[in-house]
Amino acid sequence: MSLNLNLAALPTSLDAALRAKIDGKTKPLGALGRLETLALQIGRIQQSLSPKLSEPHLVVYAGDHGIAEEGVSAFPQDVTWQMVLNFLAGGAAVNVLARELGMAVQVVDAGVKHDFGDQPTLLDAKIAPGTRNSAVEPAMDRAEAELALARGQAHAESLKARGCRVVGFGEMGIANTSAASLLLHKLAGVPLAQAVGRGTGLDDDGLARKLAVLERAAARTGEIADPIDVLAEYGGFEIAMMAGAMLGAAQAGMVLLIDGFIASSALLVAAKLAPAITEYAVFAHQSAEAGHQAMLAALGAQPLLALDLRLGEGSGAALAFPLLRASVAILNDMASFASAGVSERGE
Amino acid sequence: MSLNLNLAALPTSLDAALRAKIDGKTKPLGALGRLETLALQIGRIQQSLSPKLSEPHLVVYAGDHGIAEEGVSAFPQDVTWQMVLNFLAGGAAVNVLARELGMAVQVVDAGVKHDFGDQPTLLDAKIAPGTRNSAVEPAMDRAEAELALARGQAHAESLKARGCRVVGFGEMGIANTSAASLLLHKLAGVPLAQAVGRGTGLDDDGLARKLAVLERAAARTGEIADPIDVLAEYGGFEIAMMAGAMLGAAQAGMVLLIDGFIASSALLVAAKLAPAITEYAVFAHQSAEAGHQAMLAALGAQPLLALDLRLGEGSGAALAFPLLRASVAILNDMASFASAGVSERGE
Repeated sequence: MSLNLNLAALPTSLDAALRAKIDGKTKPLGALGRLETLALQIGRIQQSLSPKLSEPHLVVYAGDHGIAEEGVSAFPQDVTWQMVLNFLAGGAAVNVLARELGMAVQVVDAGVKHDFGDQPTLLDAKIAPGTRNSAVEPAMDRAEAELALARGQAHAESLKARGCRVVGFGEMGIANTSAASLLLHKLAGVPLAQAVGRGTGLDDDGLARKLAVLERAAARTGEIADPIDVLAEYGGFEIAMMAGAMLGAAQAGMVLLIDGFIASSALLVAAKLAPAITEYAVFAHQSAEAGHQAMLAALGAQPLLALDLRLGEGSGAALAFPLLRASVAILNDMASFASAGVSERGE
Repeated sequence: MSLNLNLAALPTSLDAALRAKIDGKTKPLGALGRLETLALQIGRIQQSLSPKLSEPHLVVYAGDHGIAEEGVSAFPQDVTWQMVLNFLAGGAAVNVLARELGMAVQVVDAGVKHDFGDQPTLLDAKIAPGTRNSAVEPAMDRAEAELALARGQAHAESLKARGCRVVGFGEMGIANTSAASLLLHKLAGVPLAQAVGRGTGLDDDGLARKLAVLERAAARTGEIADPIDVLAEYGGFEIAMMAGAMLGAAQAGMVLLIDGFIASSALLVAAKLAPAITEYAVFAHQSAEAGHQAMLAALGAQPLLALDLRLGEGSGAALAFPLLRASVAILNDMASFASAGVSERGE
């Protein structure tokens, strides 16, 4: 299994025809705002004037983090595997939201510290039972990072084989905001104090402890040129696998629906490997996690929603999915001035 | 037909139980942000720990405006009736969005300047074929304003009889941003320069002309104490009927989903008549129309979406509806820590 980094920029040859189709609809020019830019982007990704969001999937990548032993999270590490079982039982927020809003949920064990035994609906892609503690040593070795990326890429290919044209990226992993903050710091140069946040709900003391731990972790290495080396030093298995899956999904011409802080950190890794990937990405929401604003700025991203969410799992991606469906429906189903016999503007 | 203004503040006796139910879900406290406040509000409106959004309707109230003859819109007045036919044919943005996102559309002729003949799916509640030009005389007389309010209230009762528990309020009427700006100015004291906007797409000259027309209209009267008199002087039939329908829907215990600038102006009228109505209102979005921010501030409103929409019709209400569905699904279907066997926070 090896990683393919080829990803061309999207052709813009269809843009004028897409713009003309949108502008001919029975509404003032530009009156549907962000929905119009979204329709244009999805049409460009699919290179079609009538794009389709077939077989939408929301994938939850789960992994554990050695740095959890430093006390950087308000919840115990066991919550990762307990929540995986909750996802499989259909009771978590992401299940409820995806069901209500029309996406199929798939759960991937990228590296949870638990033996799940026989769970037929859990995709077992475990690299190892959790990363090592990046405050004292590399979270994973280079080969593990490459394997996780490649498995993610292969997973995207399996989604393509099912006819999937849009993937929401979510995650679960106690302490993974710590990994995401470190990636943001090392890959985009954002100071740790701006990259760190309260995660699942640290109080002021907890936040100060977390920042001190991350500073110790960051000081362990100097500047690192290769993004896969940064991923190995500070990332998580779920983040690495998600980055690989994003790459594979973009190569397959899918729309990438990016959830919150952790999913954005995976995209940041993928964008360092293949910069054109951001053209395939729709940013679901501005999270309440403090570092997300700097993360979105580093990615040049404009999120669709801002609902003070800080849950992860892919919950924000599920909530934004109706806006994608809406933009495609406008492009495909709305009448034009000509077809409806409506007068255009008088000027 | 007479207007009933009784509307009590919502009881808060169920709040603690609703909060406890939300807090027991498998997620960090507060991690679903605005979705949690929304679930609390809907539970409070329905006085239920398991609310339902049965038979969701999106109603488009249409009316014409005499002030259109002052050249305050970029589109000719005929577009009002042409768009009504487009709504009835199912080809407009609001039809496409409501269909995609699960709402039934109903179109009400509150006062369009057109004889529609036999249109079985159009609800004929016409007060008159358009208002008079409020730049030179009252838009309607007091009796017409009261009749429009009462017809709206009766219309809400008919929705209740269908089992409807949530109504999205939309509208169509060339020049109705002028009416809404004048209502905002007269009812909330917002200076006209902050209350006026480009509507369907005026250029700078058009905007300056519109402001001059509105200043002339506003100067025609002094301060007016009675909100129904303000409505008669400056409103529109679709705005008056919507205000009455909002009142009736709140009295029937429905959730009011308020679209953009025009729908908010109707709520502003209703709130002057029955202040408790804002407790029943969910504000769909922050419109790109310049005066909407001041309007929302006057209503103490926090909109859910900000997508640079400036279309009206109820398009923003349709786009926000999935968030209401999501919040109710979280309340009703998501697992609790106890039911899922997930550990609570460690502190």
